[in-house]
Amino acid sequence: MDDQYDKIIIGIDPGTNLMGYGILGVNGKKTFALALGVIRLNKFEDHYMRLHRIYERVVGLVDHYHPDEMAIEAPFFGKNVQSMLKLGRAQGVAMAAALARQVPITEYEPRKIKMAITGNGAASKEQVREMLRRILHIPDETLDIELDATDALGAALCHFYESSKPVSSRSYSSWKDFIAKNPDKLKQ
Amino acid sequence: MDDQYDKIIIGIDPGTNLMGYGILGVNGKKTFALALGVIRLNKFEDHYMRLHRIYERVVGLVDHYHPDEMAIEAPFFGKNVQSMLKLGRAQGVAMAAALARQVPITEYEPRKIKMAITGNGAASKEQVREMLRRILHIPDETLDIELDATDALGAALCHFYESSKPVSSRSYSSWKDFIAKNPDKLKQ
Repeated sequence: MDDQYDKIIIGIDPGTNLMGYGILGVNGKKTFALALGVIRLNKFEDHYMRLHRIYERVVGLVDHYHPDEMAIEAPFFGKNVQSMLKLGRAQGVAMAAALARQVPITEYEPRKIKMAITGNGAASKEQVREMLRRILHIPDETLDIELDATDALGAALCHFYESSKPVSSRSYSSWKDFIAKNPDKLKQ
Repeated sequence: MDDQYDKIIIGIDPGTNLMGYGILGVNGKKTFALALGVIRLNKFEDHYMRLHRIYERVVGLVDHYHPDEMAIEAPFFGKNVQSMLKLGRAQGVAMAAALARQVPITEYEPRKIKMAITGNGAASKEQVREMLRRILHIPDETLDIELDATDALGAALCHFYESSKPVSSRSYSSWKDFIAKNPDKLKQ
Protein backbone atom coordinates (compact mmCIF):
# COMPACT_ATOMS: atom_id res chain seq x y z
CA MET A 1 0.00 0.00 0.00
CA ASP A 2 2.72 2.46 1.01
CA ASP A 3 4.83 1.91 -2.13
CA GLN A 4 1.98 2.93 -4.43
CA TYR A 5 1.84 6.55 -3.20
CA ASP A 6 4.34 9.34 -2.65
CA LYS A 7 2.75 10.05 0.69
CA ILE A 8 -0.08 8.78 2.85
CA ILE A 9 -1.83 11.06 5.33
CA ILE A 10 -4.17 9.85 8.07
CA GLY A 11 -6.82 12.37 9.12
CA ILE A 12 -8.48 12.01 12.52
CA ASP A 13 -11.52 13.81 13.96
CA PRO A 14 -11.44 12.70 17.59
CA GLY A 15 -14.54 12.79 19.72
CA THR A 16 -15.72 10.95 22.80
CA ASN A 17 -18.79 9.46 21.08
CA LEU A 18 -17.57 9.01 17.51
CA MET A 19 -14.10 9.25 16.06
CA GLY A 20 -13.82 9.85 12.33
CA TYR A 21 -10.86 8.79 10.22
CA GLY A 22 -9.85 9.23 6.62
CA ILE A 23 -6.81 7.95 4.73
CA LEU A 24 -5.50 10.09 1.89
CA GLY A 25 -3.05 8.86 -0.73
CA VAL A 26 -0.96 11.45 -2.60
CA ASN A 27 0.80 11.02 -5.94
CA GLY A 28 2.36 14.28 -7.10
CA LYS A 29 -0.58 16.69 -7.05
CA LYS A 30 -3.18 13.94 -7.26
CA THR A 31 -5.06 12.89 -4.15
CA PHE A 32 -7.05 9.75 -3.49
CA ALA A 33 -9.42 8.72 -0.69
CA LEU A 34 -8.10 5.30 0.34
CA ALA A 35 -10.44 4.72 3.26
CA LEU A 36 -12.77 6.59 5.53
CA GLY A 37 -15.09 5.69 8.35
CA VAL A 38 -16.02 6.17 11.97
CA ILE A 39 -15.09 4.38 15.17
CA ARG A 40 -18.21 4.09 17.32
CA LEU A 41 -17.54 4.72 20.96
CA ASN A 42 -21.00 5.35 22.35
CA LYS A 43 -21.68 1.64 22.65
CA PHE A 44 -19.18 1.56 25.53
CA GLU A 45 -20.40 3.07 28.77
CA ASP A 46 -16.97 2.92 30.34
CA HIS A 47 -14.71 5.89 29.62
CA TYR A 48 -11.53 3.73 29.59
CA MET A 49 -13.09 1.21 27.22
CA ARG A 50 -13.68 4.12 24.83
CA LEU A 51 -10.10 5.32 25.15
CA HIS A 52 -8.83 1.79 24.72
CA ARG A 53 -10.90 1.38 21.55
CA ILE A 54 -9.56 4.66 20.12
CA TYR A 55 -5.99 3.54 20.77
CA GLU A 56 -6.52 0.07 19.31
CA ARG A 57 -8.25 1.30 16.18
CA VAL A 58 -5.83 4.15 15.45
CA VAL A 59 -2.84 1.83 15.96
CA GLY A 60 -4.59 -0.64 13.62
CA LEU A 61 -5.05 2.03 10.93
CA VAL A 62 -1.45 3.22 11.29
CA ASP A 63 -0.12 -0.34 11.05
CA HIS A 64 -2.31 -1.08 8.03
CA TYR A 65 -1.79 2.08 5.96
CA HIS A 66 1.64 3.16 7.20
CA PRO A 67 0.82 6.88 6.97
CA ASP A 68 3.71 9.33 6.73
CA GLU A 69 1.84 12.04 8.63
CA MET A 70 -1.20 12.55 10.83
CA ALA A 71 -3.59 15.51 10.66
CA ILE A 72 -5.99 16.06 13.54
CA GLU A 73 -9.08 18.25 13.60
CA ALA A 74 -8.74 19.99 16.94
CA PRO A 75 -11.07 22.68 18.23
CA PHE A 76 -9.21 24.98 20.59
CA PHE A 77 -12.26 26.13 22.46
CA GLY A 78 -15.12 24.22 24.00
CA LYS A 79 -18.17 24.54 26.15
CA ASN A 80 -16.68 23.73 29.51
CA VAL A 81 -13.60 22.38 31.30
CA GLN A 82 -15.18 18.95 31.76
CA SER A 83 -15.82 18.37 28.06
CA MET A 84 -12.39 19.76 27.13
CA LEU A 85 -10.70 17.35 29.54
CA LYS A 86 -12.55 14.43 27.93
CA LEU A 87 -11.79 15.69 24.43
CA GLY A 88 -8.14 16.15 25.39
CA ARG A 89 -7.99 12.56 26.57
CA ALA A 90 -9.50 11.27 23.32
CA GLN A 91 -7.03 13.39 21.33
CA GLY A 92 -4.14 12.28 23.56
CA VAL A 93 -4.90 8.60 23.07
CA ALA A 94 -5.16 9.01 19.27
CA MET A 95 -1.94 11.04 19.26
CA ALA A 96 -0.16 8.39 21.35
CA ALA A 97 -1.00 5.82 18.66
CA ALA A 98 0.77 8.03 16.08
CA LEU A 99 3.66 8.99 18.40
CA ALA A 100 4.26 5.32 19.24
CA ARG A 101 4.90 4.74 15.51
CA GLN A 102 6.95 7.94 14.97
CA VAL A 103 4.24 9.54 12.80
CA PRO A 104 4.41 13.36 13.03
CA ILE A 105 1.18 15.14 13.95
CA THR A 106 -0.22 18.48 12.80
CA GLU A 107 -3.49 19.87 14.12
CA TYR A 108 -5.97 22.11 12.39
CA GLU A 109 -8.87 24.11 13.73
CA PRO A 110 -12.24 23.14 12.18
CA ARG A 111 -12.49 26.61 10.62
CA LYS A 112 -9.13 26.23 8.90
CA ILE A 113 -10.13 22.87 7.41
CA LYS A 114 -13.45 24.24 6.12
CA MET A 115 -11.64 27.18 4.58
CA ALA A 116 -9.03 24.93 2.89
CA ILE A 117 -11.65 22.57 1.43
CA THR A 118 -14.56 24.88 0.54
CA GLY A 119 -13.05 28.37 0.59
CA ASN A 120 -15.45 29.27 3.40
CA GLY A 121 -14.44 28.94 7.05
CA ALA A 122 -18.09 28.85 8.10
CA ALA A 123 -19.13 26.09 5.64
CA SER A 124 -21.43 23.33 6.91
CA LYS A 125 -20.20 19.76 7.38
CA GLU A 126 -22.43 18.77 4.44
CA GLN A 127 -20.70 21.32 2.20
CA VAL A 128 -17.29 19.94 3.24
CA ARG A 129 -18.52 16.43 2.37
CA GLU A 130 -19.82 17.58 -1.02
CA MET A 131 -16.54 19.25 -1.94
CA LEU A 132 -14.51 16.23 -0.83
CA ARG A 133 -16.76 14.03 -2.97
CA ARG A 134 -15.95 16.14 -6.03
CA ILE A 135 -12.23 16.68 -5.36
CA LEU A 136 -11.55 13.04 -4.48
CA HIS A 137 -14.08 11.50 -6.93
CA ILE A 138 -15.90 9.58 -4.24
CA PRO A 139 -18.72 7.76 -6.08
CA ASP A 140 -22.35 8.62 -5.38
CA GLU A 141 -23.07 5.07 -4.24
CA THR A 142 -21.35 5.91 -1.00
CA LEU A 143 -23.91 8.63 -0.34
CA ASP A 144 -24.34 7.89 3.31
CA ILE A 145 -20.76 8.64 4.36
CA GLU A 146 -20.85 9.91 7.88
CA LEU A 147 -19.94 13.52 8.51
CA ASP A 148 -17.30 12.67 11.11
CA ALA A 149 -15.55 10.55 8.48
CA THR A 150 -15.51 13.35 5.89
CA ASP A 151 -14.36 15.83 8.54
CA ALA A 152 -11.36 13.56 9.19
CA LEU A 153 -10.64 13.18 5.48
CA GLY A 154 -10.93 16.97 5.22
CA ALA A 155 -8.22 17.35 7.88
CA ALA A 156 -5.93 15.08 5.82
CA LEU A 157 -6.60 17.02 2.59
CA CYS A 158 -6.16 20.36 4.38
CA HIS A 159 -2.80 19.10 5.65
CA PHE A 160 -1.77 18.13 2.13
CA TYR A 161 -2.68 21.63 0.83
CA GLU A 162 -0.86 23.31 3.71
CA SER A 163 2.28 21.22 3.41
CA SER A 164 2.52 21.73 -0.34
CA LYS A 165 2.28 25.54 -0.08
CA PRO A 166 5.52 27.40 -0.78
CA VAL A 167 7.18 28.30 2.52
CA SER A 168 6.68 32.05 2.07
CA SER A 169 2.89 31.80 2.14
CA ARG A 170 2.74 29.62 5.23
CA SER A 171 1.80 30.94 8.59
CA TYR A 172 4.45 31.35 11.23
CA SER A 173 4.18 30.26 14.82
CA SER A 174 6.60 32.92 16.04
CA TRP A 175 9.09 35.54 14.94
CA LYS A 176 11.88 33.00 15.51
CA ASP A 177 10.03 30.57 13.25
CA PHE A 178 9.64 33.26 10.58
CA ILE A 179 13.38 34.01 10.66
CA ALA A 180 14.24 30.33 10.49
CA LYS A 181 12.07 29.86 7.40
CA ASN A 182 13.17 33.12 5.76
CA PRO A 183 16.89 33.66 6.35
CA ASP A 184 17.02 35.83 3.17
CA LYS A 185 14.56 38.32 4.71
CA LEU A 186 17.10 39.33 7.34
CA LYS A 187 18.97 42.57 6.60
CA GLN A 188 22.73 42.02 6.55
CA MET B 1 10.49 -7.94 39.95
CA ASP B 2 6.87 -8.96 39.43
CA ASP B 3 7.23 -12.35 41.16
CA GLN B 4 8.45 -10.77 44.37
CA TYR B 5 5.19 -8.95 45.12
CA ASP B 6 1.51 -9.88 45.25
CA LYS B 7 0.69 -6.77 43.32
CA ILE B 8 2.46 -3.79 41.79
CA ILE B 9 0.67 -0.46 41.35
CA ILE B 10 1.99 2.39 39.22
CA GLY B 11 0.87 5.84 40.32
CA ILE B 12 0.96 8.73 37.86
CA ASP B 13 0.52 12.47 38.42
CA PRO B 14 0.31 13.81 34.87
CA GLY B 15 1.10 17.39 34.08
CA THR B 16 2.27 19.25 31.02
CA ASN B 17 5.50 20.50 32.65
CA LEU B 18 6.34 17.66 35.02
CA MET B 19 4.89 14.18 35.29
CA GLY B 20 5.38 12.37 38.57
CA TYR B 21 5.44 8.59 38.93
CA GLY B 22 5.66 6.18 41.81
CA ILE B 23 5.83 2.39 41.85
CA LEU B 24 4.28 0.62 44.83
CA GLY B 25 4.88 -3.03 45.65
CA VAL B 26 2.31 -4.84 47.80
CA ASN B 27 2.82 -8.03 49.84
CA GLY B 28 -0.27 -8.85 51.86
CA LYS B 29 -0.85 -5.67 53.87
CA LYS B 30 2.73 -4.50 53.51
CA THR B 31 3.57 -1.78 51.02
CA PHE B 32 6.93 -0.79 49.56
CA ALA B 33 8.08 2.17 47.47
CA LEU B 34 9.95 0.52 44.59
CA ALA B 35 10.67 3.66 42.61
CA LEU B 36 9.58 7.26 42.33
CA GLY B 37 10.60 10.23 40.26
CA VAL B 38 9.56 12.87 37.78
CA ILE B 39 9.64 13.07 34.02
CA ARG B 40 10.76 16.57 33.05
CA LEU B 41 8.81 17.95 30.12
CA ASN B 42 9.55 21.67 30.32
CA LYS B 43 12.85 21.22 28.51
CA PHE B 44 10.84 20.53 25.34
CA GLU B 45 9.23 23.52 23.73
CA ASP B 46 7.22 21.39 21.34
CA HIS B 47 3.91 20.10 22.67
CA TYR B 48 4.17 16.82 20.71
CA MET B 49 7.69 16.19 21.95
CA ARG B 50 6.31 16.44 25.47
CA LEU B 51 3.48 14.03 24.71
CA HIS B 52 5.91 11.66 23.01
CA ARG B 53 8.19 11.74 26.04
CA ILE B 54 5.27 10.96 28.38
CA TYR B 55 4.26 8.00 26.23
CA GLU B 56 7.80 6.67 25.95
CA ARG B 57 8.58 6.97 29.64
CA VAL B 58 5.28 5.53 30.88
CA VAL B 59 5.59 2.58 28.45
CA GLY B 60 9.17 2.14 29.72
CA LEU B 61 7.99 2.07 33.36
CA VAL B 62 5.17 -0.36 32.54
CA ASP B 63 7.53 -2.67 30.65
CA HIS B 64 10.10 -2.54 33.45
CA TYR B 65 7.88 -2.97 36.51
CA HIS B 66 4.94 -4.87 34.98
CA PRO B 67 2.36 -3.14 37.19
CA ASP B 68 -0.97 -4.88 37.68
CA GLU B 69 -2.87 -1.61 37.98
CA MET B 70 -2.47 2.10 37.31
CA ALA B 71 -3.72 4.91 39.58
CA ILE B 72 -3.88 8.42 38.18
CA GLU B 73 -4.19 11.67 40.11
CA ALA B 74 -6.79 13.53 38.08
CA PRO B 75 -8.26 16.90 38.99
CA PHE B 76 -11.76 17.22 37.59
CA PHE B 77 -11.76 20.98 37.50
CA GLY B 78 -9.28 23.46 36.16
CA LYS B 79 -8.69 27.09 35.47
CA ASN B 80 -9.77 27.21 31.85
CA VAL B 81 -10.68 25.12 28.81
CA GLN B 82 -7.23 25.57 27.26
CA SER B 83 -5.34 24.14 30.23
CA MET B 84 -7.88 21.34 30.63
CA LEU B 85 -7.44 20.34 26.98
CA LYS B 86 -3.66 20.17 27.47
CA LEU B 87 -4.01 18.28 30.74
CA GLY B 88 -6.47 15.88 29.06
CA ARG B 89 -3.91 15.20 26.33
CA ALA B 90 -1.15 14.49 28.86
CA GLN B 91 -3.50 12.17 30.77
CA GLY B 92 -4.65 10.51 27.54
CA VAL B 93 -1.11 9.76 26.41
CA ALA B 94 -0.19 8.29 29.83
CA MET B 95 -3.41 6.27 29.84
CA ALA B 96 -2.72 4.98 26.31
CA ALA B 97 0.60 3.59 27.56
CA ALA B 98 -1.28 1.59 30.21
CA LEU B 99 -4.15 0.62 27.90
CA ALA B 100 -1.67 -0.62 25.29
CA ARG B 101 -0.41 -3.10 27.89
CA GLN B 102 -3.86 -4.03 29.25
CA VAL B 103 -3.23 -2.35 32.61
CA PRO B 104 -6.53 -1.22 34.19
CA ILE B 105 -6.70 2.44 35.26
CA THR B 106 -8.42 4.09 38.22
CA GLU B 107 -8.37 7.83 38.76
CA TYR B 108 -8.51 9.74 42.02
CA GLU B 109 -9.14 13.38 42.75
CA PRO B 110 -6.27 15.11 44.59
CA ARG B 111 -8.52 15.65 47.62
CA LYS B 112 -9.34 11.95 47.84
CA ILE B 113 -5.64 11.02 47.76
CA LYS B 114 -4.75 13.54 50.47
CA MET B 115 -7.59 12.23 52.62
CA ALA B 116 -6.49 8.59 52.15
CA ILE B 117 -2.85 9.32 53.02
CA THR B 118 -3.08 11.98 55.73
CA GLY B 119 -6.71 11.86 56.88
CA ASN B 120 -7.13 15.45 55.73
CA GLY B 121 -8.42 16.26 52.23
CA ALA B 122 -6.88 19.73 52.44
CA ALA B 123 -3.38 18.55 53.45
CA SER B 124 -0.38 20.18 51.77
CA LYS B 125 1.82 18.30 49.33
CA GLU B 126 4.59 18.42 51.95
CA GLN B 127 2.33 16.71 54.49
CA VAL B 128 1.50 13.99 51.96
CA ARG B 129 5.23 13.49 51.37
CA GLU B 130 5.95 13.30 55.11
CA MET B 131 3.23 10.69 55.67
CA LEU B 132 4.43 8.61 52.70
CA ARG B 133 7.94 8.75 54.10
CA ARG B 134 6.72 7.29 57.38
CA ILE B 135 4.28 4.71 55.96
CA LEU B 136 6.69 3.45 53.31
CA HIS B 137 9.90 3.85 55.37
CA ILE B 138 11.57 6.06 52.78
CA PRO B 139 14.99 6.91 54.29
CA ASP B 140 15.84 10.49 55.22
CA GLU B 141 18.78 10.53 52.81
CA THR B 142 16.25 10.95 50.02
CA LEU B 143 15.06 14.21 51.54
CA ASP B 144 14.79 16.07 48.30
CA ILE B 145 12.13 13.87 46.69
CA GLU B 146 10.07 16.02 44.41
CA LEU B 147 6.47 16.70 45.33
CA ASP B 148 5.10 15.51 41.98
CA ALA B 149 6.79 12.16 42.61
CA THR B 150 5.27 11.74 46.08
CA ASP B 151 1.86 12.84 44.74
CA ALA B 152 2.08 9.99 42.21
CA LEU B 153 3.14 7.50 44.88
CA GLY B 154 0.25 8.81 46.98
CA ALA B 155 -2.16 7.96 44.16
CA ALA B 156 -0.79 4.39 44.08
CA LEU B 157 -1.11 3.99 47.87
CA CYS B 158 -4.59 5.53 47.85
CA HIS B 159 -5.56 2.99 45.19
CA PHE B 160 -4.22 0.16 47.34
CA TYR B 161 -6.25 1.36 50.35
CA GLU B 162 -9.38 1.77 48.24
CA SER B 163 -9.09 -1.60 46.54
CA SER B 164 -8.50 -3.44 49.81
CA LYS B 165 -11.55 -1.93 51.53
CA PRO B 166 -14.44 -4.31 52.05
CA VAL B 167 -17.06 -3.71 49.35
CA SER B 168 -19.67 -2.38 51.79
CA SER B 169 -17.53 0.59 52.82
CA ARG B 170 -16.64 1.67 49.29
CA SER B 171 -18.21 4.62 47.64
CA TYR B 172 -20.82 4.09 44.97
CA SER B 173 -20.89 5.74 41.60
CA SER B 174 -24.67 5.50 41.30
CA TRP B 175 -27.79 4.04 42.83
CA LYS B 176 -27.61 1.19 40.29
CA ASP B 177 -24.04 0.56 41.38
CA PHE B 178 -25.08 0.53 45.03
CA ILE B 179 -27.84 -2.00 44.33
CA ALA B 180 -25.45 -4.18 42.34
CA LYS B 181 -22.94 -4.25 45.19
CA ASN B 182 -25.57 -4.65 47.93
CA PRO B 183 -28.31 -6.97 46.69
CA ASP B 184 -29.14 -7.86 50.34
CA LYS B 185 -30.05 -4.22 51.09
CA LEU B 186 -33.06 -4.47 48.78
CA LYS B 187 -36.37 -5.07 50.52
CA GLN B 188 -38.08 -8.16 49.19
